[in-house]
Amino acid sequence: MEKKKFAVVLSGCGVYDGAEIHEATMTMLSILQSGAEYQCFAPDVEQYHVVNHLTGQQMKEKRNVLVESARIARGDIKPLSTFRAKNYDALIFPGGFGAAKNLSTVAFDGAEATVNPEVERAIIQMLELQKPIGALCIAPAVVAKVIQGAEVTIGSDKGTADTIRKMGGKHTVTSHGQVVHDKKYNVFTTPCYMLDATILDIQKDASLVVSEIMKSIM
Amino acid sequence: MEKKKFAVVLSGCGVYDGAEIHEATMTMLSILQSGAEYQCFAPDVEQYHVVNHLTGQQMKEKRNVLVESARIARGDIKPLSTFRAKNYDALIFPGGFGAAKNLSTVAFDGAEATVNPEVERAIIQMLELQKPIGALCIAPAVVAKVIQGAEVTIGSDKGTADTIRKMGGKHTVTSHGQVVHDKKYNVFTTPCYMLDATILDIQKDASLVVSEIMKSIM
Repeated sequence: MEKKKFAVVLSGCGVYDGAEIHEATMTMLSILQSGAEYQCFAPDVEQYHVVNHLTGQQMKEKRNVLVESARIARGDIKPLSTFRAKNYDALIFPGGFGAAKNLSTVAFDGAEATVNPEVERAIIQMLELQKPIGALCIAPAVVAKVIQGAEVTIGSDKGTADTIRKMGGKHTVTSHGQVVHDKKYNVFTTPCYMLDATILDIQKDASLVVSEIMKSIM
Repeated sequence: MEKKKFAVVLSGCGVYDGAEIHEATMTMLSILQSGAEYQCFAPDVEQYHVVNHLTGQQMKEKRNVLVESARIARGDIKPLSTFRAKNYDALIFPGGFGAAKNLSTVAFDGAEATVNPEVERAIIQMLELQKPIGALCIAPAVVAKVIQGAEVTIGSDKGTADTIRKMGGKHTVTSHGQVVHDKKYNVFTTPCYMLDATILDIQKDASLVVSEIMKSIM
């Protein structure tokens, strides 16, 4: 039987201005452990900004989301503009502030956020084909912005949950080891580092969301 | 019982100019899974260079090893200058070209390489206290340069094995799922991405090297 294929959308490389590295790596590991395979994608756009992860301060630099995401993907990554939903069985977004700063403007504009058009197109294509979309950490807010009325979780952060509700979405409070599956829109979400967490929690949450998606497509 | 403490030495963030992200992440995961805890360290020095991981080309930029390593550590990282072997039960080096470009000059000078003085000091301190040192991928070459006569593995790459022999070290050919333990110097090494590998292999190799180290200190 042919292996199921996941598209993994990265948003840079590093929690404060890009994709959260542990969430991205654990998502990739979980996909392989479940017997599926993956292809990484990222939009070929400039990062919103660059954050010094030692000090938390902004740096006077410019970096590109696709180029930095390639660090996590060891160079094996494609521009998100080339993504076609018909070629994949599932689409998944690891978290990190990159989802809220580079894939969308959720970090700055909350419920009024705009979403990168390639990200929006990828989500809508999957929705049209009724294929599963997964999202970890803060990334569910991006999915909820595109799919009006989706039920998602980002854990228990009240401010972000309110933002999702203002977008027209439903928010369900969760802890580690829980996945919310919106059956209508086929969206799978889990909190990861939106809650206090170690890499152990991230491994469990990523593994669970991937296995729930796999169950839905086997 | 108090948890065993690993010091994890990073060398940047990304396989071609820094620490290999999957190896670093799997090392950290494996340490927590084994019931131990970790503290990340990196030298506060400029990277040898910056590589665009999409194209493989050098970029006209400067980046700092400690600052970029902080991306993998989510900001929880200390300058390697502050490392004291007496405070840790084990020292471990994930791989990536950063080990051969930033922690040492192995990538350019082979057997004649120099090693960053803080890296050298950390290894020698551990050696003096007969505490275990682990190294993944290309990082064993750095350890072999500091500890004359150490027996290590980097997998099966002939050129690198020859370099290690020219340094005065012993090289043992291995495949995934194998760890070489030099009992005299208490050094544990495993090949990881020096062999063809997926994240599945990295998870297994990192887990094995960490569990072998744990067995030796429990």
